[in-house]
Amino acid sequence: MSDLINHRIRRSWTERGAGAAALPERAVRWLDQRIGRIGPDRDTKPVSPRSVTESAVSVPVRTEFEDALGPDHVLFDPQERLGRTGGLSYLDLLRTRTGDETVPVPDAVLLPGDPDEVQAVLDICVRHDIGVVPFGGGTSVVGGVAALRGDKSAVVVLDLERLDDLVSVDDVSRIAVLQAGVRGPEAERLLAAHGYTLGHVPQSFERATIGGFAATRSAGQASAGYGRFEDMVTGVRLATPKGEWRLGVAPASAAGPDLRQLAVGSEGALGVITEVALRVRPLPDHRHYEGWVVDGWDGGAAAVRKLAQEHALADVTRLSDVDETAVSFALNAGWKTSLLRGYLRARGMRSPCLLIVGWEGDVVGRRRRTSALLRRAGARRIGKALGESWRHGRFSGPRQRDVLLDLGVCVETLETAAYWSNLDELHDAVRAALVSSLGQAIVMCHVSHAYETGASLYFTVLTSRDDRDPIGQWQRAKAAACEAITGIGTITHHHAVGVDHAPYLEAEIGRIGVDVLRAAKSAVDPTGILNPGKLLG
Amino acid sequence: MSDLINHRIRRSWTERGAGAAALPERAVRWLDQRIGRIGPDRDTKPVSPRSVTESAVSVPVRTEFEDALGPDHVLFDPQERLGRTGGLSYLDLLRTRTGDETVPVPDAVLLPGDPDEVQAVLDICVRHDIGVVPFGGGTSVVGGVAALRGDKSAVVVLDLERLDDLVSVDDVSRIAVLQAGVRGPEAERLLAAHGYTLGHVPQSFERATIGGFAATRSAGQASAGYGRFEDMVTGVRLATPKGEWRLGVAPASAAGPDLRQLAVGSEGALGVITEVALRVRPLPDHRHYEGWVVDGWDGGAAAVRKLAQEHALADVTRLSDVDETAVSFALNAGWKTSLLRGYLRARGMRSPCLLIVGWEGDVVGRRRRTSALLRRAGARRIGKALGESWRHGRFSGPRQRDVLLDLGVCVETLETAAYWSNLDELHDAVRAALVSSLGQAIVMCHVSHAYETGASLYFTVLTSRDDRDPIGQWQRAKAAACEAITGIGTITHHHAVGVDHAPYLEAEIGRIGVDVLRAAKSAVDPTGILNPGKLLG
Repeated sequence: MSDLINHRIRRSWTERGAGAAALPERAVRWLDQRIGRIGPDRDTKPVSPRSVTESAVSVPVRTEFEDALGPDHVLFDPQERLGRTGGLSYLDLLRTRTGDETVPVPDAVLLPGDPDEVQAVLDICVRHDIGVVPFGGGTSVVGGVAALRGDKSAVVVLDLERLDDLVSVDDVSRIAVLQAGVRGPEAERLLAAHGYTLGHVPQSFERATIGGFAATRSAGQASAGYGRFEDMVTGVRLATPKGEWRLGVAPASAAGPDLRQLAVGSEGALGVITEVALRVRPLPDHRHYEGWVVDGWDGGAAAVRKLAQEHALADVTRLSDVDETAVSFALNAGWKTSLLRGYLRARGMRSPCLLIVGWEGDVVGRRRRTSALLRRAGARRIGKALGESWRHGRFSGPRQRDVLLDLGVCVETLETAAYWSNLDELHDAVRAALVSSLGQAIVMCHVSHAYETGASLYFTVLTSRDDRDPIGQWQRAKAAACEAITGIGTITHHHAVGVDHAPYLEAEIGRIGVDVLRAAKSAVDPTGILNPGKLLG
Repeated sequence: MSDLINHRIRRSWTERGAGAAALPERAVRWLDQRIGRIGPDRDTKPVSPRSVTESAVSVPVRTEFEDALGPDHVLFDPQERLGRTGGLSYLDLLRTRTGDETVPVPDAVLLPGDPDEVQAVLDICVRHDIGVVPFGGGTSVVGGVAALRGDKSAVVVLDLERLDDLVSVDDVSRIAVLQAGVRGPEAERLLAAHGYTLGHVPQSFERATIGGFAATRSAGQASAGYGRFEDMVTGVRLATPKGEWRLGVAPASAAGPDLRQLAVGSEGALGVITEVALRVRPLPDHRHYEGWVVDGWDGGAAAVRKLAQEHALADVTRLSDVDETAVSFALNAGWKTSLLRGYLRARGMRSPCLLIVGWEGDVVGRRRRTSALLRRAGARRIGKALGESWRHGRFSGPRQRDVLLDLGVCVETLETAAYWSNLDELHDAVRAALVSSLGQAIVMCHVSHAYETGASLYFTVLTSRDDRDPIGQWQRAKAAACEAITGIGTITHHHAVGVDHAPYLEAEIGRIGVDVLRAAKSAVDPTGILNPGKLLG
């Protein structure tokens, strides 16, 4: 039973062998004081094992899939289907834990082995009017891989895990073509053999795939140095109901709108990305991460803005607000927090904000320049340990979340971005909306990606789960945050639209924008089989 | 008569008072030896003045336009209409000179004063099914502003010259909003008053407009430093037959595909751009341009590639091939060419390729780094004079073209881009296609924009005009070049699609790409009034 129920989680975050570490007792006590009753007794137990209805895929269609992919690559097993019922949002995890029967389960899991087989699957699905959910790492936190069937009688998950090859490397142009199903670490391993890196390290890095990065406009933690994923994409190959579509013949072009930027961010609704051509860079031979502290959020944001506008950002530049800094100091036992607090107070820092900066590759000259600007902005360097500690723990968030859920904590993140002149307003508005909706909660935030004209804000929320209505508790808070964002910033900076943000898309891109996307979708997917209910709702 | 005929040309390139300078006798002789008979006796004289048919806009519609814009801003005068019959390609100039009666003339010229008036014009045109050609500087060299009426009974030019304001400046976000009709120099003047620059200096700078830059994915000569125009665009406001459309709420977003990149490059076919929000940078306090020479095209391209991939490009980086270098040495009397040739020969440079590099703003450190890499690549610095001479003459191309036309020269440019590993093949293929089509011709080329993964190639062609079939002469050469480009690079790196490149678009973005663009167009412009015949043919 519990095997079945926890399949999704185990598959996602603990397969590297490093099971989620328990939270230290001290940290549990600290949290308990701030967000109300939590503890091991709050672990959620399902009332009964989740049932899985029979697949709606008929035997003749099943045969067609098997003829196209081979019988081993067409799965109807309930565990396999349950394992791809959704992504990794707090609500996904909660629903999986409680065995929520309303979560739609796909009718089959298909595992094509190459782009032609992906195309073959789409052709069969068009003929039989079956919905298709493209599935990479399954790390969506916005419902992007929910097995919704829309108006279709059946929905299948098209899992790209077998598209795991490095297709080609062009050393002259510094372009590598990777198949869509290659995961972050494997992409780096394949490229490292040629001396290259993508430098793309979002928090989902361990599980998420090249196709998923492209489909969702992913942004890695080193985006200031390596760019957002869309900046790396030089070409895309997609399978669509209308046939194969290839884009990208030059680094830049004036041959009409840049359709690569339509494919990137299309969230499986305009085609299934099967290969991505990516700009690669030489593996860095040096790497240096360190921590700084700035006094106050305003001062910190101004310092990061200065770095961005002077083209002096470190490759990783991450500024925590006062609340996130306090949580970091409280929960990281290794940081000698009380000494640090004393040091900062002695230097007049009443509202310390932690700034992590990291350089890869050419460190020395760039670090000198960034450091000079930071010092001029009143920031103080507090050493390498903090930076390295952040770097080593930077993919642990999702695992920590599993532990927090065990303790009865409602824990979720959300993110946005705005122009610099709107950033304070956005920070305050989202914070206020979350606190007002959740009551006793820790709401913390950091700038994770900075640009000349603005920056992203990444919020983490911790509160005690309301067991009377745990789903409604978060849905209301998320809605309040989304409404606060609308009109000030973007509804999502790097998590994509999926199901959760679809109601807010029109406010951002206009009715005409939505009409244009619908028209583009109709052109490639006239019967609407691709990822029903995502992006356009 | 000649006033009428030359209106288009005069309006475009000599209005700054600096009439086109005559070519020195020495240069005429040099050209004459290489491309066959040219001279003042070859000046084209029209057989008879060009006739202009009566406007097809009916009196009631005229009244509607006048009510919307005021009678002074609705022009039916033949001179005004003839002055907006097309752009500035060689064929446009030739047809204007010869009074070619087949060139379509718009039925009216409309001069709206603000975005609301642009919307009002579109609403009237939708009601009466009239084609609309958005018109900025009129500098298209690909037929982008040809007054084609498609299936409409009338076509009007919507000239944006009265949308000439700086709307707002956000000093914190470093974003300025400019109206679409602001020309390059005026944009710089308006921004300079606030201490900013766009740094966008394409060859069309003196005449072209903000809206035109965005609509065509323009790239300026300093694109390595300031980015292509699309990199500067943070927001766009368009008038469409379906109403106003605004895009751009954050520097980056994952809210689906980036529709700004659909508006940018839409060439007036998806809407009329009325305002553009642009990232601005502080005015540079220093500026340094200089010339270098590299031995051979391959070595030169490798050096520029090295700079691009090491992030050491100067803001302006422009590498001429052997032929273009020879022409530069021959035609620039001020350069003490024979001394220079001797100096280079003495240093073993048999096939010198000129490299112009220029830095704006923070010069010293960057220049040191670039110079070190260039020296390591075997390049030799030949001084500031050459760089400054290039900088001062960099907008003179279009004016020189007028002079060359007077001498019976067929002179035109075309451009493309490819990944580095395809660049040599592209260079050779386009060159061979042009030479094979034109016979005795000078075909020269430079890399004007370099990226980590590839670069642009900009070709200039000079040959003696074939007076039996001057139009066919160039059409055949251009077609040969376009066919050579297809499959290796992009059909256009920064000149856009217009009419001329439309037949080649499908080969680049696929049938599905064309279908998607058509669908997007149908969504915003269901009756097809916007810029008939452009982009999608």
